[in-house]
Amino acid sequence: MRPTARQVAELAGVSVATVSYVLSGRDRPVAAETRRRVLDAAGRLGYTPDQAARSLRRGRTQRVCLVLSSLGGVPTDERLATDLHEMADARGYSVVNLAVYSEARAKAAVDVLRGGVADGALINVTGGHLAPELINGLAAAGLPMVVLSNEDGLEGCDVVRTPETDACEEAVTHLLARGRRRIAFLAHRHDLYRERPSGRVLGYTRALDRHGVPDRIITSGADDRVSAYQTATELLRSADRPDAIFAASDRAAISAIWAARDAGLRVPDDVAIVGVGNIDEGLITNPQLSTVGPLRHDYTDVVRLLFDRLQAEEAPAAREIVRSWTFLRRGSS
Amino acid sequence: MRPTARQVAELAGVSVATVSYVLSGRDRPVAAETRRRVLDAAGRLGYTPDQAARSLRRGRTQRVCLVLSSLGGVPTDERLATDLHEMADARGYSVVNLAVYSEARAKAAVDVLRGGVADGALINVTGGHLAPELINGLAAAGLPMVVLSNEDGLEGCDVVRTPETDACEEAVTHLLARGRRRIAFLAHRHDLYRERPSGRVLGYTRALDRHGVPDRIITSGADDRVSAYQTATELLRSADRPDAIFAASDRAAISAIWAARDAGLRVPDDVAIVGVGNIDEGLITNPQLSTVGPLRHDYTDVVRLLFDRLQAEEAPAAREIVRSWTFLRRGSS
Repeated sequence: MRPTARQVAELAGVSVATVSYVLSGRDRPVAAETRRRVLDAAGRLGYTPDQAARSLRRGRTQRVCLVLSSLGGVPTDERLATDLHEMADARGYSVVNLAVYSEARAKAAVDVLRGGVADGALINVTGGHLAPELINGLAAAGLPMVVLSNEDGLEGCDVVRTPETDACEEAVTHLLARGRRRIAFLAHRHDLYRERPSGRVLGYTRALDRHGVPDRIITSGADDRVSAYQTATELLRSADRPDAIFAASDRAAISAIWAARDAGLRVPDDVAIVGVGNIDEGLITNPQLSTVGPLRHDYTDVVRLLFDRLQAEEAPAAREIVRSWTFLRRGSS
Repeated sequence: MRPTARQVAELAGVSVATVSYVLSGRDRPVAAETRRRVLDAAGRLGYTPDQAARSLRRGRTQRVCLVLSSLGGVPTDERLATDLHEMADARGYSVVNLAVYSEARAKAAVDVLRGGVADGALINVTGGHLAPELINGLAAAGLPMVVLSNEDGLEGCDVVRTPETDACEEAVTHLLARGRRRIAFLAHRHDLYRERPSGRVLGYTRALDRHGVPDRIITSGADDRVSAYQTATELLRSADRPDAIFAASDRAAISAIWAARDAGLRVPDDVAIVGVGNIDEGLITNPQLSTVGPLRHDYTDVVRLLFDRLQAEEAPAAREIVRSWTFLRRGSS
């Protein structure tokens, strides 16, 4: 039978917590003599700190990690971060953040998480950078995780889904119903290069397929406001300009509204514009922005999944929740 | 004489690195038998892992921490983060991020940094949340840091200054020279409540003082696009509307351009608008946005200070660099 931390504690004449502090090597106020006794006892008993490392990982850092795709500027991520910070504060946890915007960064993030930077992680990485295998590897190593993803094959973590394909299809179907036929899609760069199309691209192509519209006008531009403005300007000043723009982000759609105005076009008469995300800023554009997204930005249900996992005695079964998304028609379409 | 990690390594028949892995309790691939030998040897020699903990803090996590005010959306922070990630990648470091947007979050961040989350930190926290005493405490504890701040009293870290007061004064002086007399200032909320005015407020009031202009119109609104739009709309639709708006952020200034258009006013003829930050988006507004900020967004010099500190054998003397800021006049003023 393997020796336990309790046995080490008894032999050393200290508490189990002290054994954990000493063997985790972290900067806690344990007297040198006490440390020596703990190490001595651990050595005598042949106690291996795998166990300490595991308990470290399972609840000792009092930190949770938020893993996002962006270095900032994505409103949904900001709301997610706010909700996580607030609930972490209330529970005595700190929050550290990791940014994953490439495969290299995904590997680095996995190393950091494996290194025990936090007791659990909330993950919202788009663009396919963080492959399900990497997440599953972390789950197998015992890291409690909640993952916002529509990918298949995730195991050992809670998964939060959004029906973005259906909602995007609904938006494009609306544009078709209003007589639009040349509908351009401003995509995220990663959508153009990945093997399987994202839900947003899929919603767009599905709606066009169902209505027998052959034209596909897919360009990059959704990643930042400036490239969205430039792409939309090019499209709208071309001879066969689109009569609608569906942008994979609201920020890009807002840039498209500017581009239309600066090209002397009326929105929505000359060009209808729809975004994705339902950010607050869509309410101060003129006209207000039609969009696809959640009605309310409240991620407390998502964050609660993580703390449920962190506070469970045993790892709970993997859960899946679906957050609702909808098409919100406003003045721009 | 205190025993060293090398002596433990020799007695256990392993490398010093293995001793460090085992005694830091982190999740590294060390065989159970090897771990047992290391613990045994450490116990026999009376080796205390304070030393391991210290070396952990001084160069073992291979992580650097970026501490920002925002949860994202501030373009300058995004550039700083990009430069830090790139230079960290090149040096085999990971990056973790902390968000400090309140005094409570500042204390939490300090705890996380004291807990050894990273080997060093790059700090750009605005709003006075992270008091110099807190930073000095971390420096005294041996954490290598580079701090972007115009606060006095920072010790034991490198400090990066920006002459924002002078640059803001220049911008407001320009507005006065163009005949504007009712110049409103859209401030960050924290500017309204702190004891000492920020450089941006100071630049504004100084310019007005020097030109004997008594009116001070200072409102909140610079924190997010929606509140900026609302504040600017209120101002511009009032009977004694301002003839210029100086906003403490470009994002707020861009919202003010929208608000002016929606109020039927011409920019700059009816109302001149100037922001702060020199973000790329200011080049796609119509008219282009006058602003105050750095000519180029390149923080490699700032990031290099941090890695210099991390790689130094002994802590180098505290350095101070000043990055240039300037007023950039474009179409909106």
